[in-house]
Amino acid sequence: MRVEPRLSRGLRDLLPEQMLARQRMVDTIRGVYELYGFSPLETPAVEYLDVLSGPAGQEAQQSIFRVTNPEDEALGLRFDLTVPLSRVVSQYQQEIVLPFRRYQVSSVWRADKPEAGRFREFMQFDLDSVGAPSEVADTEIMAAMCDTLEALEVGPYRVRFSSRKILNLLLKHAAIAEEQGADVFRVLDKLDKIGFAKVRQELTLGYTDESGDRIRGIGLTSEQVDKIEQFLAIRGDRAAVLDQLEGLFANVAGATEELGVIRRISSHLDALGYPSERVALDVSIARGLAYYTGPVFEANLLDAPEFGSVFGGGRYDDLVKRFTGQSIPATGASIGVDRLLAALVKLNRIPARKTTTQVLVTAMDPNLMGEYLKITYELRRAGIRTEIHVGEPKRLGKQIQRADRLEIPYVVIMGSDEAARGVVTVKEMAEGRDKATAVAAHEEWKSARFGQQEVARGDLVKTLHGLLS
Amino acid sequence: MRVEPRLSRGLRDLLPEQMLARQRMVDTIRGVYELYGFSPLETPAVEYLDVLSGPAGQEAQQSIFRVTNPEDEALGLRFDLTVPLSRVVSQYQQEIVLPFRRYQVSSVWRADKPEAGRFREFMQFDLDSVGAPSEVADTEIMAAMCDTLEALEVGPYRVRFSSRKILNLLLKHAAIAEEQGADVFRVLDKLDKIGFAKVRQELTLGYTDESGDRIRGIGLTSEQVDKIEQFLAIRGDRAAVLDQLEGLFANVAGATEELGVIRRISSHLDALGYPSERVALDVSIARGLAYYTGPVFEANLLDAPEFGSVFGGGRYDDLVKRFTGQSIPATGASIGVDRLLAALVKLNRIPARKTTTQVLVTAMDPNLMGEYLKITYELRRAGIRTEIHVGEPKRLGKQIQRADRLEIPYVVIMGSDEAARGVVTVKEMAEGRDKATAVAAHEEWKSARFGQQEVARGDLVKTLHGLLS
Repeated sequence: MRVEPRLSRGLRDLLPEQMLARQRMVDTIRGVYELYGFSPLETPAVEYLDVLSGPAGQEAQQSIFRVTNPEDEALGLRFDLTVPLSRVVSQYQQEIVLPFRRYQVSSVWRADKPEAGRFREFMQFDLDSVGAPSEVADTEIMAAMCDTLEALEVGPYRVRFSSRKILNLLLKHAAIAEEQGADVFRVLDKLDKIGFAKVRQELTLGYTDESGDRIRGIGLTSEQVDKIEQFLAIRGDRAAVLDQLEGLFANVAGATEELGVIRRISSHLDALGYPSERVALDVSIARGLAYYTGPVFEANLLDAPEFGSVFGGGRYDDLVKRFTGQSIPATGASIGVDRLLAALVKLNRIPARKTTTQVLVTAMDPNLMGEYLKITYELRRAGIRTEIHVGEPKRLGKQIQRADRLEIPYVVIMGSDEAARGVVTVKEMAEGRDKATAVAAHEEWKSARFGQQEVARGDLVKTLHGLLS
Repeated sequence: MRVEPRLSRGLRDLLPEQMLARQRMVDTIRGVYELYGFSPLETPAVEYLDVLSGPAGQEAQQSIFRVTNPEDEALGLRFDLTVPLSRVVSQYQQEIVLPFRRYQVSSVWRADKPEAGRFREFMQFDLDSVGAPSEVADTEIMAAMCDTLEALEVGPYRVRFSSRKILNLLLKHAAIAEEQGADVFRVLDKLDKIGFAKVRQELTLGYTDESGDRIRGIGLTSEQVDKIEQFLAIRGDRAAVLDQLEGLFANVAGATEELGVIRRISSHLDALGYPSERVALDVSIARGLAYYTGPVFEANLLDAPEFGSVFGGGRYDDLVKRFTGQSIPATGASIGVDRLLAALVKLNRIPARKTTTQVLVTAMDPNLMGEYLKITYELRRAGIRTEIHVGEPKRLGKQIQRADRLEIPYVVIMGSDEAARGVVTVKEMAEGRDKATAVAAHEEWKSARFGQQEVARGDLVKTLHGLLS
C-alpha cells in the first residue's frame, strides 16, 4: 500500500538552499529588468498544441509534454516563453500598448533525453520588446544582459552578437540559395561545440560521427565553404570587425545599409560604456532557432565555458505573423535561470544559505512557552527573522543542533533560573563554532558556553539588532 | 494556415496590470513568511499519478490534468502543494532538518468545471511546519495568517478555527461511529454555503436539490443531528466557547485533554495580541479535506464574504504515512493567491499599476538618438525606472500617448532646439491631465504644455529624483 516517494526522470525538487539561491537570482534579475521599464506577464503552463507548434524550434516541439483535459483537447506544456508571448500579443491587441515591454519568469518543459545538468522542467527569465523596430531596442537588450550579469556578480562574462542580416550577406557573397540559409545557420551554430573541420563536412557531404551515426551534409561546394571559412576568420574589436565585413561584402547588394545598423548599435554601446570586451561583435554567432531575423546575441561565463550560452536571444520580426498574418518587429533575450544557477554554484559565486532565519528561540521549559512566544514575536515585530522551536520536545543540545545544521546565526536560551533573574542568553553560533573547533571536539561545543552572553530581557531586541547589523 | 491565438477553457493570462498586483501580493506574503523563519521549496509541476492520489481530497484527484512523457508513464499536474510537500519530506529524510518549515508559492491545476472567478490553473502560497507536534506551531500559523492579511491591507477579516479533535468529541457525544466522521465533516463544511436545514437533510435521509439532483443522506438519526445542532449553536468569544464546550462534553472521555490544547492556543493568541475579533474559535469550521487531524483554520474577508475562505489549513499528522509508514506531525495553511487577488480587486484594495516605469524618454529626432540613450542610462543608473521610445518612429503626441495609457508619471522631451540650448523638458503627466481636463478636450492636452518644465540637461537626474521622491 505504500507509495514510493519519487520523481519521474529529468524532474527535480529545489530544497531551501537551492531555492534561496534561485530566488535571490530571480529578484536581482527582476530589479534590473524593471529599471529598464519591462513589466511582468504570466501565461498558463498549458497551451493548445497548435499554438505551441509552428516556426519555433522543431526540436523543442518534438519534446512537448502532452496534456489531457476532461474535454480531450490536444494540449501541451509550453517549451519556451516566446511562443506564449507571441500568442498574447496577437490575442490582446486592444489591451496591449505597443511597444509591449514585458518580462516573464516561468517554468518551461522539454521532455528531452535527460543529461547531467539538464532537466525536463526548468526556469527561464525572458525580456522582450514587441513592436520595437528600432536598433535601440536591440542595443538595450544587450546592455540589459550586461547589467544583469553584473548585478548577479557572475564574474567575467562576454556578450557576443552578430546578425542574421550579416549571415544573409554571407549567403549572397558565397552564392548560397536563401532557402538553404536556415540549414547553414543551424550548422554554424554548432561551431563552438564541434569545431570547423566537422562544420565543413556537415556543410558539404556529411560524415559519420564517433558513435557511427550518419550526419547528413547539406551539399555546399568546397568554394562556398571556403568563403564561409574566410568570413569566420574575421576577428577583432567591433570597429575592426565592421571594417573587415565592409571589405568582404564590398560588392554585396544591401551591405552598406545592413552594416550601418550594426555600426550604429556598436556606437551606442560605446557611448553607454559597453566596450568590445563586454559586448563583442562575433560573426560566428548564428543561434539555432529559425525565427531570428536580425541581431542575435548570447552570453557566456568566461570561467565556465562548459555551460555554453547562459543568456541568449535576438530579433524576431515575424513570430506573430502565424497568428495575425502581420509582422510585428520584436527583439528579446532569455536567461536559462537554472543553467546559470548551476554554473554559479560550480564557480562558488552564490552564497549558500540554508535558511533566512536569523534567530532561533529555544523552548526548554514547557511552563515558559508563553514567554518564548512573546520573545519570538518581539523579535519578529522588530523585523528580525525568528523561529521558535516547535519540534519534538528535546534537550537544549538537540535544539541548538538545528541552528547549527541550518546555520542560523543566533540562538536565544532561557531557563527557569534565567527567567527568574530577568535575563536571557544569546548564543552566537559562529563564534561558538570557531572557538570550539580550536579547543574541543565538535560534539562538545554545542552545549558549551562559547559565544554566549547574558543580556537583560528588556535589552534582547536591541542586542540582537546590534549583533545582526 | 493561421493559428487562432486562444487558451483552453479555465486558463487565462495575467497581463502586466494583474501581474504587478499579484507580484506585490506574493512579495508581501513572502516577507511575512520569512520573518517567521519559513524557507522556500520548489517542486516540479509534473508528478507521478500514484504520488498525487491517496488521502488528499477525492474531488481534487478526479480533476487531475493527465500528462504524458516519452516513456509513457502515468503522470499528472499537481493539484495542491501539500501532497508534493509530504513526498519531499519522505524522499529527503537525510537532507531535511525537522521541523521543516517551508513555504511554497506555485501554480496548481484542477480540471474542474470552470465557473466565474474559478480557474483551472491558479496560484497557491503555502506555509507548513513538518515535524512540529507542538500547539505552538498551530498558534503561529494562525498568527501568520493574521500578520499576512494585515500586511496585505485586505481590510477587515476574520480567522476562524476549530479542531478535528473537537469534532471527534462531538462524534462521541452524539454516538456517531468514527468511520462516519469524514462524511459528517464533509457535510458540515457546507454549512456556510447551504445552511443548516439542508445540512440536516443531508446528514439524515438526503434530499433533491433545485436542479433535480439527488443528494444522498448519510443516515444519522434525528436525535444525533439534534446534538450536532446544539453543538453548532455555541457562540461567543474564545473563552466563552471553551466554557460551553466543557459543559457540553463534560461526560465525554478525553474532552479535558483536547480542550486543554485549544485553551492553551487561545491563551497564547491572547498574549500575542490576537483577540477573538481576529481569531475566533468557531465550532462550525470543519474543512472538507479528510486528512486533517487537529486544529483547522480558515480566513474570510468580512467585506467580501462571497469569496469564501481565502486562506485555510490545519494540522495533518498522517499525510507522510502513505510514503514512509510513519506519522510525522505537521500543520500549515494555504493562501488561494488568485482568489484573494480577485477579492481585493473587487474591493478596490489593490493599487492598479500598468507598469512600474517612472519616466519615458521620448525620441523625436533620429540624430539625437545617442543623446536620448545617454539620458536613459543616466536615469537608470540613478535607480529611476526608465523607458526609451523604441517603437515605430512617431510624432511626439503619439509617444506621449503611450505614457498616458500606461500611466507613466513623467516624460522627458528634447528636440534639436533644446539640445542646442543644453536643456530638456520634463512633462508631469498627472498635472497635465488634470489641467487639461479643466480647460481643453482630452485629445488636446497631450501635445499641450501643461505640467511642463524646462530644466538644464545637467540637472535632469536631480530634478526627477526630487519629483519622484
